[in-house]
Amino acid sequence: MVDILHKVGIKARAEEVYKALTTRDGLAGWWTTNTRGEGNVAGGAIDFRFSVDGVEMGGCEVKVLELAAGRQVLWQVVGGPAEWIGTRIAFELRQQGEYCIVLFKHQGWKEPVEFMHHCSTKWAIFMMSLKALVESGKGAPNPDDVRIDERS
Amino acid sequence: MVDILHKVGIKARAEEVYKALTTRDGLAGWWTTNTRGEGNVAGGAIDFRFSVDGVEMGGCEVKVLELAAGRQVLWQVVGGPAEWIGTRIAFELRQQGEYCIVLFKHQGWKEPVEFMHHCSTKWAIFMMSLKALVESGKGAPNPDDVRIDERS
Repeated sequence: MVDILHKVGIKARAEEVYKALTTRDGLAGWWTTNTRGEGNVAGGAIDFRFSVDGVEMGGCEVKVLELAAGRQVLWQVVGGPAEWIGTRIAFELRQQGEYCIVLFKHQGWKEPVEFMHHCSTKWAIFMMSLKALVESGKGAPNPDDVRIDERS
Repeated sequence: MVDILHKVGIKARAEEVYKALTTRDGLAGWWTTNTRGEGNVAGGAIDFRFSVDGVEMGGCEVKVLELAAGRQVLWQVVGGPAEWIGTRIAFELRQQGEYCIVLFKHQGWKEPVEFMHHCSTKWAIFMMSLKALVESGKGAPNPDDVRIDERS
């Protein structure tokens, strides 16, 4: 098992970051505008769809496994790319002075395939989008996310 | 052992990307302007220094282990943060149409410590800086790198 790990410091209260990770408007503001479902209740399901140049490229569905207000969000991936199925996506938050420190983990990849390298870079870019959303009110979610090659 | 993995597609010839990974001007153009040493010969040593708000925050020294023109650059870290010593940093390049695909690996971390999460995010940002340098002629190396928290 191999994991994607990231860390960002967001100049905000942890509660604000938590809101961006658990509400539809929050999630749509940094990951993908095409977000549906319920992120604010354990057992809830969220559906994320992505597109490039107006063409839908797929998506992923997660089940909300654990929530701790202002501290943790844990999802399990139940739909999407084959390599993602069964993996877990965790956001651990803690307040450190003026900053909310976010530890991000996309855990349980079976193999360090090339697609995992791609997703690692994209997750970093989306963490910066989350930071921008919370700090400035404007993130860069798909379809206006930062592209890293011709297809994404 | 755990690894940091990233992937970017750079719209350029692999030889151009290789140059940015093996020349002093190239490395100074995307990672840190304060770069010294010889990156274009196996056995060479390169010294990278980083600063934040005008204060030097440390650096790292690498030994060039392997070079394959237009295909691979492999370094071993011989100085710098304790967690980095002995780790290897690899850039694997391949041409895919108009794009040079870069697979990046910072391999051999003993533990997935919080500092590794930080470095994973920063490496993604520096890979985007490498992409910008090669595609547009202007990267975002330290000390003008994208900050992810109050200290970096």
